[in-house]
Amino acid sequence: MPQEPTLNQRIVLVSRPQGAPTPENFRLERVNLPELADGQVLLKTLYLSLDPYMRGRMSDAPSYAAPVEIDEVMTGGAVSRIEQSRNPKFEVGDLVVGATGWQSHSISDGRNLMPVPKGLASPSMALGVLGMPGMTAYMGLMDIGQPKAGETLVVAAASGAVGSVVGQVAKLKGLRVVGIAGGADKCRYVMDELGFDACIDHKSVTFADDLAQACFKGVDIYFENVGGKVFDAVVPLLNPKARIPLCGLIAGYNAHEAPSGPDRLPALQRTLLTKRVRIQGFIVFDDYGDRQPEFLSAMAPWVRDGKIKFREDVVDGLEQAPEAFIGLLEGRNFGKLVVRVAQD
Amino acid sequence: MPQEPTLNQRIVLVSRPQGAPTPENFRLERVNLPELADGQVLLKTLYLSLDPYMRGRMSDAPSYAAPVEIDEVMTGGAVSRIEQSRNPKFEVGDLVVGATGWQSHSISDGRNLMPVPKGLASPSMALGVLGMPGMTAYMGLMDIGQPKAGETLVVAAASGAVGSVVGQVAKLKGLRVVGIAGGADKCRYVMDELGFDACIDHKSVTFADDLAQACFKGVDIYFENVGGKVFDAVVPLLNPKARIPLCGLIAGYNAHEAPSGPDRLPALQRTLLTKRVRIQGFIVFDDYGDRQPEFLSAMAPWVRDGKIKFREDVVDGLEQAPEAFIGLLEGRNFGKLVVRVAQD
Repeated sequence: MPQEPTLNQRIVLVSRPQGAPTPENFRLERVNLPELADGQVLLKTLYLSLDPYMRGRMSDAPSYAAPVEIDEVMTGGAVSRIEQSRNPKFEVGDLVVGATGWQSHSISDGRNLMPVPKGLASPSMALGVLGMPGMTAYMGLMDIGQPKAGETLVVAAASGAVGSVVGQVAKLKGLRVVGIAGGADKCRYVMDELGFDACIDHKSVTFADDLAQACFKGVDIYFENVGGKVFDAVVPLLNPKARIPLCGLIAGYNAHEAPSGPDRLPALQRTLLTKRVRIQGFIVFDDYGDRQPEFLSAMAPWVRDGKIKFREDVVDGLEQAPEAFIGLLEGRNFGKLVVRVAQD
Repeated sequence: MPQEPTLNQRIVLVSRPQGAPTPENFRLERVNLPELADGQVLLKTLYLSLDPYMRGRMSDAPSYAAPVEIDEVMTGGAVSRIEQSRNPKFEVGDLVVGATGWQSHSISDGRNLMPVPKGLASPSMALGVLGMPGMTAYMGLMDIGQPKAGETLVVAAASGAVGSVVGQVAKLKGLRVVGIAGGADKCRYVMDELGFDACIDHKSVTFADDLAQACFKGVDIYFENVGGKVFDAVVPLLNPKARIPLCGLIAGYNAHEAPSGPDRLPALQRTLLTKRVRIQGFIVFDDYGDRQPEFLSAMAPWVRDGKIKFREDVVDGLEQAPEAFIGLLEGRNFGKLVVRVAQD
């Protein structure tokens, strides 16, 4: 007996943004999914992760990954449940993580689906503290940052998915940790809940001075995940032999032409030379994909024991994803942004 | 019987340059040296090394080393001969290398004097291919560059003291090596004598296109020793996981304010991120001073066997040093620039 076709809701890219994305760049549509072939599984999306890197996929400028094509589903990682299986490796009810995109259902041949670790308070943690953002934080800090007790680390977006983990791991390693966040609420959370030594509000008119004061021994590691004015404020504070892991530049993602002068590049080059600084870009799964077990074996106990805290900003309903994503690029979220696509 | 006092000729810094140095920034003067105290040696300078980093010492902008004070002797490395010794570690006639400065004689307590390796065709090699520039080339390439056979390396100032060694060592390691130099004579030398695969004339109007054509498989290592337009031409050619050891920025040394826009920094940051590039500044003796034996044991046999060639640009007479140094910053030298201060 043929099965009832599965109705899939999905959000496709309608047009490439000029500058900041707008709701008009996206369209919600409904399509029937085909029946499963041998080896395939049908997935029901429970939680969709929204992350800054997705802005890059909306552009067709050269990047490290192919862009989303017009009229194609927006890419994105998600936690899903197996609804039907014609693949012996998966059983109905299994929870998996995969790059299944902005949609309510998807069909997969099972490759690149990872099991969600057992015993999580919420499966959405596999998209945050125990997922791509957490691993970005951990690998960039440990491998490029090379943290040493007593050093000073600065990280921006300190209440966010990556920054919050960077700072807490650095605290566990004995560093002085200075966060940067937007607004008093986030700064309070970063200091009181996450235990950073200081948190500077980048919206303050005295931001650069405040940062310099908090980094009274200079900066040994700047974990770069935002770019823009934070970078400018940190560079003069760098100590000799400082390290800058670079995983994101959210401040510049919406720019569509080179900013006017002055040209800040020569001054940066001089600093890199005279302070003997290392700056290194990385893409977590490309560069460290084989070290996921190492990451999970360090992070999972820390999370279980409450040594690493995290906060989620949960938005309900797939149709809310475009607006939530636009807000993410403006810093309107507070914690790891996920969309609850299905209640169960 | 008291000895005749030694007359020292020396070149002191009269004023700090605004932009390019001029002869008026220097003064040649003669002073009598005091008698040796116990533990001291009197040195007669044979060869003085002139190097781009000295431009930095003429400024009082913050840098990795203290500036030369006004009316003080210009700093610089030199090969000297022991003329008198009241230090049991040194005998009259010994040849040593030390940071003794732009002068005909100097007095030292023996600390930081290194013996000149035996058997050199000329002791001036201890200032070039077997000295600071050669070690800068070797350590930056090997430690930060991490060369792998089959990769493509680009280095500017390819006929100079650092660039010529970078390219030749990279050839020995099996890389495709593209040099950049100013003018047809230097380019011919770099290809025909040093054996680079290609050498691009940065004075050509088609420079960026020529470079792209020579780097048809992209650029895996860019050894940065000049900055400026070469950097701009290389950045779009970088391959994923490229490495940029950064030891000098001669193109910008004479600049005294931030250049006008456009601001090239955001584009560089994007490249570092999307191509996962590592850029790292270094100062050879600060970062690798303890690895000098490793350098000498690799380089000395290569030089002896003719696998690494070098060229010196020898200027006669200490009084010529300022003009020769000014020319160095303009690329007028051809090979490692040294001043023969004394004939023997």
